[in-house]
Amino acid sequence: MAEHFEQIRATLAQQGTDIEQVIAHIQTFSIETPSWGYGNSGTRFKVFPWPGAARDLREKLADAAQVQRVTGCCPTVALHIPWDQVDDWQEIKAYAEHLGLRLGAVNPNLFQDHAYRFGSLCHFDKGVRSQAIAHVLSCIEIAQSIDSNVISLWLADGTNYPGQDDLRHRRHRLLDSLQTIYAALPDRMRLLIEYKFFEPAFYSTDLPDWGTSLLMAQKLGPNAEVLVDTGHHPQGTNIPQIVAQLLDEDRLGGFHFNDRKYADDDLIAGSLNPFELFCIFHEIVGAQHESNANAGRIAYMIDQSHNIEPKIEAMIQSILHIQTAYAKALLVDRVALQQAQESGDVLGAYRVLQAAYETDVRPLLTEVRVRQGLDPDPIAAFRSSGYAEQVARERTLGESVGGYPGA
Amino acid sequence: MAEHFEQIRATLAQQGTDIEQVIAHIQTFSIETPSWGYGNSGTRFKVFPWPGAARDLREKLADAAQVQRVTGCCPTVALHIPWDQVDDWQEIKAYAEHLGLRLGAVNPNLFQDHAYRFGSLCHFDKGVRSQAIAHVLSCIEIAQSIDSNVISLWLADGTNYPGQDDLRHRRHRLLDSLQTIYAALPDRMRLLIEYKFFEPAFYSTDLPDWGTSLLMAQKLGPNAEVLVDTGHHPQGTNIPQIVAQLLDEDRLGGFHFNDRKYADDDLIAGSLNPFELFCIFHEIVGAQHESNANAGRIAYMIDQSHNIEPKIEAMIQSILHIQTAYAKALLVDRVALQQAQESGDVLGAYRVLQAAYETDVRPLLTEVRVRQGLDPDPIAAFRSSGYAEQVARERTLGESVGGYPGA
Amino acid sequence: MAEHFEQIRATLAQQGTDIEQVIAHIQTFSIETPSWGYGNSGTRFKVFPWPGAARDLREKLADAAQVQRVTGCCPTVALHIPWDQVDDWQEIKAYAEHLGLRLGAVNPNLFQDHAYRFGSLCHFDKGVRSQAIAHVLSCIEIAQSIDSNVISLWLADGTNYPGQDDLRHRRHRLLDSLQTIYAALPDRMRLLIEYKFFEPAFYSTDLPDWGTSLLMAQKLGPNAEVLVDTGHHPQGTNIPQIVAQLLDEDRLGGFHFNDRKYADDDLIAGSLNPFELFCIFHEIVGAQHESNANAGRIAYMIDQSHNIEPKIEAMIQSILHIQTAYAKALLVDRVALQQAQESGDVLGAYRVLQAAYETDVRPLLTEVRVRQGLDPDPIAAFRSSGYAEQVARERTLGESVGGYPGA
Amino acid sequence: MAEHFEQIRATLAQQGTDIEQVIAHIQTFSIETPSWGYGNSGTRFKVFPWPGAARDLREKLADAAQVQRVTGCCPTVALHIPWDQVDDWQEIKAYAEHLGLRLGAVNPNLFQDHAYRFGSLCHFDKGVRSQAIAHVLSCIEIAQSIDSNVISLWLADGTNYPGQDDLRHRRHRLLDSLQTIYAALPDRMRLLIEYKFFEPAFYSTDLPDWGTSLLMAQKLGPNAEVLVDTGHHPQGTNIPQIVAQLLDEDRLGGFHFNDRKYADDDLIAGSLNPFELFCIFHEIVGAQHESNANAGRIAYMIDQSHNIEPKIEAMIQSILHIQTAYAKALLVDRVALQQAQESGDVLGAYRVLQAAYETDVRPLLTEVRVRQGLDPDPIAAFRSSGYAEQVARERTLGESVGGYPGA
Repeated sequence: MAEHFEQIRATLAQQGTDIEQVIAHIQTFSIETPSWGYGNSGTRFKVFPWPGAARDLREKLADAAQVQRVTGCCPTVALHIPWDQVDDWQEIKAYAEHLGLRLGAVNPNLFQDHAYRFGSLCHFDKGVRSQAIAHVLSCIEIAQSIDSNVISLWLADGTNYPGQDDLRHRRHRLLDSLQTIYAALPDRMRLLIEYKFFEPAFYSTDLPDWGTSLLMAQKLGPNAEVLVDTGHHPQGTNIPQIVAQLLDEDRLGGFHFNDRKYADDDLIAGSLNPFELFCIFHEIVGAQHESNANAGRIAYMIDQSHNIEPKIEAMIQSILHIQTAYAKALLVDRVALQQAQESGDVLGAYRVLQAAYETDVRPLLTEVRVRQGLDPDPIAAFRSSGYAEQVARERTLGESVGGYPGA
Repeated sequence: MAEHFEQIRATLAQQGTDIEQVIAHIQTFSIETPSWGYGNSGTRFKVFPWPGAARDLREKLADAAQVQRVTGCCPTVALHIPWDQVDDWQEIKAYAEHLGLRLGAVNPNLFQDHAYRFGSLCHFDKGVRSQAIAHVLSCIEIAQSIDSNVISLWLADGTNYPGQDDLRHRRHRLLDSLQTIYAALPDRMRLLIEYKFFEPAFYSTDLPDWGTSLLMAQKLGPNAEVLVDTGHHPQGTNIPQIVAQLLDEDRLGGFHFNDRKYADDDLIAGSLNPFELFCIFHEIVGAQHESNANAGRIAYMIDQSHNIEPKIEAMIQSILHIQTAYAKALLVDRVALQQAQESGDVLGAYRVLQAAYETDVRPLLTEVRVRQGLDPDPIAAFRSSGYAEQVARERTLGESVGGYPGA
Repeated sequence: MAEHFEQIRATLAQQGTDIEQVIAHIQTFSIETPSWGYGNSGTRFKVFPWPGAARDLREKLADAAQVQRVTGCCPTVALHIPWDQVDDWQEIKAYAEHLGLRLGAVNPNLFQDHAYRFGSLCHFDKGVRSQAIAHVLSCIEIAQSIDSNVISLWLADGTNYPGQDDLRHRRHRLLDSLQTIYAALPDRMRLLIEYKFFEPAFYSTDLPDWGTSLLMAQKLGPNAEVLVDTGHHPQGTNIPQIVAQLLDEDRLGGFHFNDRKYADDDLIAGSLNPFELFCIFHEIVGAQHESNANAGRIAYMIDQSHNIEPKIEAMIQSILHIQTAYAKALLVDRVALQQAQESGDVLGAYRVLQAAYETDVRPLLTEVRVRQGLDPDPIAAFRSSGYAEQVARERTLGESVGGYPGA
Repeated sequence: MAEHFEQIRATLAQQGTDIEQVIAHIQTFSIETPSWGYGNSGTRFKVFPWPGAARDLREKLADAAQVQRVTGCCPTVALHIPWDQVDDWQEIKAYAEHLGLRLGAVNPNLFQDHAYRFGSLCHFDKGVRSQAIAHVLSCIEIAQSIDSNVISLWLADGTNYPGQDDLRHRRHRLLDSLQTIYAALPDRMRLLIEYKFFEPAFYSTDLPDWGTSLLMAQKLGPNAEVLVDTGHHPQGTNIPQIVAQLLDEDRLGGFHFNDRKYADDDLIAGSLNPFELFCIFHEIVGAQHESNANAGRIAYMIDQSHNIEPKIEAMIQSILHIQTAYAKALLVDRVALQQAQESGDVLGAYRVLQAAYETDVRPLLTEVRVRQGLDPDPIAAFRSSGYAEQVARERTLGESVGGYPGA
């Protein structure tokens, strides 16, 4: 292992890079895990309850603290309102801090009230729109009270049949609703506008692509940005390029990481196409390298829904994949890359990326963890802790949690 | 209207076809509606309860009887076990007959028991496989007791991650389980093997395509056939060609009709690409025309999940679309078509199809309905009956029905 | 036929619409055909030469004149430079006028020079970018000299492998090149910026989606607009919604119509999903209805590549499909639609569209043609003219034409 | 490097595997390169001629010999007839042997004759079918004369518009044609039947999926097998599962390797989704491990079309990717995998695969090469040889080669 690490150091030195810089980047890189990832979830066909799955926000935070304990890079937890609604936010904030955590992005739920059958911020009925706006405003208040500075907004709005609603009118209502919300946003808070290609609406989705989200953000103001969920694109989409474009427009608010094979499958990030995840980070590191202003304030968040696998372990696995992709992107020889690019050496340029990608970065991540006093193998550390067995005993199986309809 | 009808008659006469033959075909064409289509259903995000949605099998049958009352072509209802499980099948059979209905295909549920987390007929554990097989066998018994001759088998089996299970071993288990089931099948009963490209499994699905289902059917015997769900294919798939291939192999068991834009959206059949539905029926009519043995025994069934729209009206709408597609396919001038095909007249051949498709067949369907003593406009007939309002008053809103996890 | 027409008139009257208004809309609707559609083209595997395919611009114009003769709605022809380059533009302009035609959009070719191996406007080499810019500037000059007011810009630029070039740098170069071009644009001329999901670049495409094209157009100025090619989207994309968004942003420059099943197949417009084409026109008519400023200045153009079918006949067929879609969209009962939409009557609203779509508009189009002194059946008129046979005799088979590499 | 190798040895030893077995597997693994990969090729928009691209079969063989020289695992070359047609096959066979090569699979061309506009083996005209059959028979003769035992059959047959031809009739003609061909097949020769989802036909393709090819092969006899081209599937298809199914049916004839992002982009194998390539080899190694009869006789072949990159270098790059994927698959701890699979440890099982995939196998491949007397870095070896520059000087640029229409 030590030999491997030394070899990575030597390779980087040849490229003119001090490995300590790479380590410093990895050490300051943190990923937010979602509260809802610790509860039960599933598909429209079935939710398989997991023994010991968290049943309320306190349990979710306790689970998230385990992820932070073994990875050292997950100090914050995203909330979903009303799934995580509590009476006393200061108490829960203190509890989180006691666990070594902070509360992160607040995610309003605009899809589960009966009123939202035909939409929320885009609904033809002003009353429903007002209800939806009021809910987001209350989420902004929660965020303020817990010192969170991110509102992460996903809309399920759309239509299922041609003609069901007027697409331009829906757009007008969307902008109008967002403007009301934006007006209530405190200065230091950012509104991240997520997009999704389809589902749960099946004919049209009101925020279907990055272009629509970006246009809305631009109309709102500088604190509105775009949120990229890696599973929310049509097949064949070049997500790294979308990332590059948003960085270039100074509007990449953050990520919801997950992976998929076909639709929004919400699998473990990097589990099906790890090279694509690497290419995403390659764009980010490239922008950092050129001191792109946006690159320093990206919110890295996970959004997954584990159907059949253990929740906490799946979350740790995702973290490892994201760290791996980032670490490999940091190894890219950018001088050689630029040289190859500017001489039309297509394969030479590709090989610069590939050389970084093929590198086994486990020794590098081990070094980072050991320096932080962590177990080199977070999965083993978690498995051997007995935590999973403990909560499986203590928490009643199958109690509805998570907030998903079947959970 | 009458003029339109006469014009269709004249056009057909020119093609050498007696319109009475076309009418006879439409009159003998029937479509089975699914019991689960009358209860609440939705997406993994939300089930919007519909006022008056059926809460048990008797209510579902009552609703289906309304569809039959106004369309005259939906005399049978598919069942889903255990969602529709009752103590006394003879009583429910009599009730159905009292409503002018018969009980149709029996659909075993192999995805909602906690035991099926990693599969049913393909599960690595023999105990789970036995449980799944036993369930199908009990469904065969139900089918016998209610004089149904179709078992409609859909598996949710699959894996979510590479390596999760051995793909060939799963295949061996699948065949082994199916052989046990087939051995228990009475002579006059057919086993329809459905396939689906993905969902709820996200990495591999054990019956992912028509090829796999057909291979299994061939290994089992002549009473095993393939079930085509129109929403279960990758984007860009030529479904009419699959229909043609299965007809040619004498193994097209039947259809689950619905429509979609991206994944298995379960929208109203023919609502997004009516021309494709027409092309499917064009293959069937072509096979009928050549006395293809299979063409006469296809089970036409609907499988939809209505998220935001009224259940009964959506079902009637689907029936109208399917009838429309079939009626148009019957208008195709097959002599002219063959002539154009065999002379390489690409556009001439295409125009023969298009001429039939562009024809407004509403007057023809009106004639068929009037002859059957039906209202020419089934939707209007249903809307004016007051039935929807009545059940909305009588049935309590929101009681869990349908069987879907969130319903 | 006359009866049918009267019935459409009566239905429209019930909706409060005078059929003469509909007729007037159809009469003023015109579609531009592309010069390159009259020459040979094909796939990367094979170009099948068509007997009588046009070999130079004069022959292409002669063919286009045939389309105009039988349809009456195709008075302009798009040019492709250098495929259509001539020495004397005034002479060719006069020749077109003599044929009853005008020269339309000028399409620069930025993909066929050896220099463009790694791109044109986005190339890393300033010299290549300058060559590409100079070519577009010369196209602007041509457009001026022939009184054309549209430059229709499609880029093949992109990369085939991750790392091949820097995606943000390419974006900077693209904007820079476009700004130089825009600066040279005369006041009355519009620059239409096309986008395409993939092909011929296979990893990234510099203008991959409407969002990118729109952002570029906004940065350039009011005379830059977006061009929607109906075949240039990922599977499952809602193109009508893109049209709605661009109309709402006042930047829908025009269309390149064609149809496809999977990729950019360049088949006859409306041949595979005619309902989608209808839904596109439904958005346009809806915008016209609300006096949307953009709706009145859309450039309707065809961009097809006929591989195996006769060129002129395929073009006429496309025109008929587009007219049909537009005519049906004009029949939509917009009062009833709005009422249904605003009362949450999902299926009622959908049925308003469907009622228009199911209407057989051939009698209406016949009426329009008869009033214009045209044959009611343009295909029959063309077939009976003997023109196809004549050019097949006169023009030598297989001489390379069209400009495509294999043609 | 040596340390790395020792660590792989140690890890394998822990799994109970002798690294020498792994090395032996890699040493006996060979990949066939295609003659057409050394000539110019491109897209329908442009063929960019490569300086020094091979212009005839002798030059292609000379280039292939370079690939063999630096990789040591590419001793055979696939031929394409008539592109590679020569007068004296014995002379060319001797020339190949002189270069250290053997002639491999013979690929009939059934798409480039003018006669094939509407198909070849499926054409409605018996004369065209006979022509196509005769061509395949002549390829069989060539194969015999050069001691090749594989006919690799790809059909471009299909239709572009609904109705263009009768889909079942085409299927009958296809089977009939194949039966004639199969009857002429010598005992030791295999007929590999390729399938492709779409292109160049855009509506239907006569051999669109593995199911169709397998059915045909089964009807023909034991020497007919299926050829999997990795780029010939709809998006989201699980290719490893298709491989597993074909192995299980004892009909996996071989591969045409390449990679793509959307359609049949023919990029370098493993360049966009290397993990998927690894998963394909994982299925093969798993089958080998269980002594699957088919696993030992798979023909590993490359089928790529390099548009903008150097031909020979791209081919070497592909070889390295395929070797890498295979080497990683050989590292999978199959005992641990099975244990995890059979205990429902989803993530544990996945991690067994991932551990192998994350391993940097370059030291292992280096060891294999050094033992074979090869340069550890085939790309560097080729680049430093000066061969590319030499042929660029010697071979005239831009002379039409390759056989593709634009080349």
